[in-house]
Amino acid sequence: MENNLVAAVRAGEKPAVGPADALEALRAAVGDDLQRVNTLIVGRMESQVPLIPQLAGHLVAAGGKRLRPMLTLASARLCGYRGDAHIGLACAVEFIHTATLLHDDVVDESDLRRGLPTANAVWSNQASVLVGDFLFSRAFQLMVESGSLEVLRILADAAATIAEGEVGQLITANEPETAEAAYLEIIRGKTAALFAAATRVGAVIADRPPHEAEALDAYGLNLGIAFQLVDDVLDYSAHQSVLGKTIGDDFREGKITLPVILAFGRGSDEERAFWRRTLERQEQHEGDLAHAIHLMERHGALGETIDRARAHTDAACLALETLPNRPERQILADVAAFCVDRAY
Amino acid sequence: MENNLVAAVRAGEKPAVGPADALEALRAAVGDDLQRVNTLIVGRMESQVPLIPQLAGHLVAAGGKRLRPMLTLASARLCGYRGDAHIGLACAVEFIHTATLLHDDVVDESDLRRGLPTANAVWSNQASVLVGDFLFSRAFQLMVESGSLEVLRILADAAATIAEGEVGQLITANEPETAEAAYLEIIRGKTAALFAAATRVGAVIADRPPHEAEALDAYGLNLGIAFQLVDDVLDYSAHQSVLGKTIGDDFREGKITLPVILAFGRGSDEERAFWRRTLERQEQHEGDLAHAIHLMERHGALGETIDRARAHTDAACLALETLPNRPERQILADVAAFCVDRAY
Repeated sequence: MENNLVAAVRAGEKPAVGPADALEALRAAVGDDLQRVNTLIVGRMESQVPLIPQLAGHLVAAGGKRLRPMLTLASARLCGYRGDAHIGLACAVEFIHTATLLHDDVVDESDLRRGLPTANAVWSNQASVLVGDFLFSRAFQLMVESGSLEVLRILADAAATIAEGEVGQLITANEPETAEAAYLEIIRGKTAALFAAATRVGAVIADRPPHEAEALDAYGLNLGIAFQLVDDVLDYSAHQSVLGKTIGDDFREGKITLPVILAFGRGSDEERAFWRRTLERQEQHEGDLAHAIHLMERHGALGETIDRARAHTDAACLALETLPNRPERQILADVAAFCVDRAY
Repeated sequence: MENNLVAAVRAGEKPAVGPADALEALRAAVGDDLQRVNTLIVGRMESQVPLIPQLAGHLVAAGGKRLRPMLTLASARLCGYRGDAHIGLACAVEFIHTATLLHDDVVDESDLRRGLPTANAVWSNQASVLVGDFLFSRAFQLMVESGSLEVLRILADAAATIAEGEVGQLITANEPETAEAAYLEIIRGKTAALFAAATRVGAVIADRPPHEAEALDAYGLNLGIAFQLVDDVLDYSAHQSVLGKTIGDDFREGKITLPVILAFGRGSDEERAFWRRTLERQEQHEGDLAHAIHLMERHGALGETIDRARAHTDAACLALETLPNRPERQILADVAAFCVDRAY
């Protein structure tokens, strides 16, 4: 029997709600809580050291979708939570995410993030490292305020897994022979672990039975993997310029993502030589990015990556089935669909 | 009435035990616990991502004095603690310290730390940032294992204060007109906050009354301030080459420390122009470091910085007076004396 939520989401390969609508519905579902989170984010970025709110303010202005904190808020509501701890935890989740972005900026030398100059283009590498550390510490302070050791354990574990994933990515950078399994392990760490923790804590603070926490963890984990896979596709998709990112960032940095792994694995000797030159040795010339996209399309690498992403959003929706049938459940399923549909 | 511990430590300006003996006595006092901490450090640096233990192993080899974890162990013993939680917390304290060093290496581009090439000279800046994040996360996992929200609060607060201090230092870098008060606030954050947390948690896990936790906090805080002031002096002292650091690191980086602030404040217009050229604009020529040391000596800036350090170690010893009269108390007082005496 096909899962209802999966079926609803996959119906005609077009979900009932459009991608933008799914995020809008999520925003509507969490209601005033998101505003409370935003207020807390600004408040907790305060410091007697003026550079911190200055740089943090830069990130707040850049905004972002607040997808992760909204997932925490919606998960808590789905679990019938009635207290206030979800506000602080959603803020902590966003701080961990932002700290990761700041440290990534140092690492990746990416030119644009969210359509604005990255923090480290405006300030220095050093400030990015240290303000990231500050936000990371603030996240732990917020987690301590939740009063739950279980919540602290979940998010501390996630933070360690994120760092392991990031280091793993550093090692595989420029190595097109990276195995698919190793790549999936990396994105499970660097992206999906925080999604999983963000949703799982909703069940924990609501004091729900372990299987519901597991279900929300599985939802977040699969959603995060799908999210990253689609991100990897978008970096080779002209369409993504509307998202405010520079197309070809991953290519220029020699980052090895699933589309590259698939195209490399299916490529001729000549094509592999192309990938080795451009990504391993990073000798890139005009037209190389276009050729890379051409090779990916020839081998169906982008389409197949999206298919894999869809398999993970299916798994995410399947996990939701065991949770209470509240409105938030369908909204979370629609968010999973949005995750893949933004690729088109 | 002069404080007994202060008197004992100051007697004849020469403590009963020599500097090396004070650390040896501390090491002897903590006994097997330090070996347990070292084993835990190696164990918790493990990761399926091989670069992490490789880089972490580099730091373990470099060793360091393990001063901070020994302070946690000794404080717990001084408070009569009989459990095992101090081992994990001492490890967490060392991980936070090591993470800070790794992120500092990125920031400061220092050439040598502990006599070995810094991590980022051997590996990349990116690896230093990410492995630092990993250690920071591992520290929080260890803190969660302690099962004490109060301990978590203390160390999370310290981590945030450290980051604020580091950012504060970044802002005042190259600015010789930095006020003394602002400078003290910075070292209170970047160095002393972790010392204070390291000692305070000893009282907390031993379930001692608040005034003892406060006393150990005051001891650690003042010890940390003194430690940093002496470090700042050592950077302008030929003597310090034996410590395995490059002399003049702070000068080359344009770092503003108390000796600079004092010499600048007492300097002639010509001397101030010298400081502005060398530190603010960082135009440095051969002989500038020697001239800087000469100016500091002319104005008694190094000696006065040591005097300030001594005032803080006096305060540290005074704070110990309210604690139980166990052997660890005298050992901690001797460590404070060591802190200043290593300047000679």
